[in-house]
Amino acid sequence: MSLHRFTSRTNTGVQVLRTRTFILNLSVRLHTLIQSVFGGPVARAHTKWNTMSGSDPAAAGSLSEEFAVPAHVEEVRSLMAAFAEQHGAAGRMVVLITSGGTKVPLESRTVRFLDNFSSGRRGASSAEYFLSQGYAVIFLHRHRSLYPYTRLYTGVNLLDCLTLEGAGLVTVDQRKLPNITKVLKRYQEVKSAGLLLPVEFSTLSEYLHLLKAAAQALSSIGSKAMFYLAAAVSDFYIPASEMPEHKIQSSNGPLQISMKMVPKILKPLVKDWAPKAFVISFKLETDPSILLERARCALDTYNHQAVVANVLDTRHGYVVVVTKDSQKELVLTDEEAQREVEIEEKIVQNLSHAHIQFINQKG
Amino acid sequence: MSLHRFTSRTNTGVQVLRTRTFILNLSVRLHTLIQSVFGGPVARAHTKWNTMSGSDPAAAGSLSEEFAVPAHVEEVRSLMAAFAEQHGAAGRMVVLITSGGTKVPLESRTVRFLDNFSSGRRGASSAEYFLSQGYAVIFLHRHRSLYPYTRLYTGVNLLDCLTLEGAGLVTVDQRKLPNITKVLKRYQEVKSAGLLLPVEFSTLSEYLHLLKAAAQALSSIGSKAMFYLAAAVSDFYIPASEMPEHKIQSSNGPLQISMKMVPKILKPLVKDWAPKAFVISFKLETDPSILLERARCALDTYNHQAVVANVLDTRHGYVVVVTKDSQKELVLTDEEAQREVEIEEKIVQNLSHAHIQFINQKG
Repeated sequence: MSLHRFTSRTNTGVQVLRTRTFILNLSVRLHTLIQSVFGGPVARAHTKWNTMSGSDPAAAGSLSEEFAVPAHVEEVRSLMAAFAEQHGAAGRMVVLITSGGTKVPLESRTVRFLDNFSSGRRGASSAEYFLSQGYAVIFLHRHRSLYPYTRLYTGVNLLDCLTLEGAGLVTVDQRKLPNITKVLKRYQEVKSAGLLLPVEFSTLSEYLHLLKAAAQALSSIGSKAMFYLAAAVSDFYIPASEMPEHKIQSSNGPLQISMKMVPKILKPLVKDWAPKAFVISFKLETDPSILLERARCALDTYNHQAVVANVLDTRHGYVVVVTKDSQKELVLTDEEAQREVEIEEKIVQNLSHAHIQFINQKG
Repeated sequence: MSLHRFTSRTNTGVQVLRTRTFILNLSVRLHTLIQSVFGGPVARAHTKWNTMSGSDPAAAGSLSEEFAVPAHVEEVRSLMAAFAEQHGAAGRMVVLITSGGTKVPLESRTVRFLDNFSSGRRGASSAEYFLSQGYAVIFLHRHRSLYPYTRLYTGVNLLDCLTLEGAGLVTVDQRKLPNITKVLKRYQEVKSAGLLLPVEFSTLSEYLHLLKAAAQALSSIGSKAMFYLAAAVSDFYIPASEMPEHKIQSSNGPLQISMKMVPKILKPLVKDWAPKAFVISFKLETDPSILLERARCALDTYNHQAVVANVLDTRHGYVVVVTKDSQKELVLTDEEAQREVEIEEKIVQNLSHAHIQFINQKG
């Protein structure tokens, strides 16, 4: 059981908790509405993550029962595979960008959930720069997180930007949407060329299954695939089998939540699902003193190509791209910040250059 | 201390936890960006909730230190007070609507937070119906939750709705934004008449302080004020004094989170801050069998005028308005659902009628 009520506290600094029995609901009802282009109902089935057990002993055996599979995962896999093949055949590199935070339900019929701070800004802006570099982009993003191009008008109320003209015509007030003609033109070019494939997730379960499907879908293009894992994924979750069905009542006093560690998907992704791909992970910390050590530790553990290391407070102006044998600081100067240059332009330039070298080495 | 690592489990069903020491950070850095019309930096000061201690013994004494005050609260209070006075003088009733979920940080430099499911749909649509009934509306809503009128186009990508015409003109594709001329006209009427005052919150602390400020600001109009508390407010939180400063590391194993109960703000609101107002709370449950009992229990405890009781799965088609001496079911028929009638229209009709009776009784 993962949810407990605090019942007593000894004076030794040790807490004694009594387990509270909840009705179990093994057939988890995924809360979220998947409103992606592939929208559809969500299945209650569970899958085996066979290749994962060996890679993450901590989680071995339990994965198949703990993360519900979204019903549309096969459909999305096919779309992603077709997208990769088409662009691979046209000589394009393909990047899978993950973006935004994941939602971790605390109840089966979810009212409460744990979330990770992430607007999706880094993923959405990076998508634009990868498109400028000639990549085709699969944009695996949290529902309602920032979206390429549209992100530039976030926070603007749509109805504040429109003008009622005569004869039922509605026009855009371009003072309210700066550069709209330029941005709209670029958006329409990308869309009509079919260079951007959006896929949505909300929960951790959806994220995990869709990322696995993406890795498998991109395997056909080998080293031409890049994984740019910018999403803020929860480290902790409550297994479906240990979740209460109903809304946790507040009338019974304080709450103890016990969360398990999420298996590190990077391990099977690098080792089993996409062994030829160029894989970039992100490391966000709030404490700068442990950042580089943790980035190096991730590289050693997962054997992928690079970690983009950043600190919460300074992430829009400073990152370090860490590889096995290098460490490159990318910084926005004050002058660049004034010109509204974005750090993601530098990150994407750095990584797409490294990706080409990687492809040339691997063939 | 509120965050613990699981260290051992006895075989008696009792868990023994060892407290883990975290660096304390008493000057809480509110994570969220307040981007409301009153936007501004967030203070680190703390306030006394003097009137609250007596009303909620469970939380007595600690409130002053546990919920950081947003820096703009005084500015917002003045704006709300001026709004209430102006509309009160014009003979209008004023409703304060709260809408959307609250964010509860788990870390001072917040990466993770607990959230409540709420799109803000009920609050945003209710605001429109209150405006139709002649109310002036203060819309206290979660940042980026649904907004009156604009909500009708949620999920639509702005750039998909625009057309580049010659000569740099950008027009709206009205097939993509149904009824846009009608909705835009209504939105502009409401805006130019100054009938809608938006105020944003993100965290639980912001919500609590802004609601208190609203209650005080509306006290001048007495029974003409309605509180329509539709927001999904967290029942649990971690006090600032017990929060770790930095991102919780996942490398040390599973996580125990211990959360305190949020003091029930409804009690001082009804008793001390807005004793003459017409106050409506909402009760959302996932288990229908306990719903009405819990609604009645809330009325007995807080002594306010009505509870709108609803069940998560059916909340868009069925609610019960519970008062001390009545219980009114409001239901959308299939035919109404087809015509896209909204249950909020019925709720608002019911409550605005009851509000007029209340005013006539109280004088």
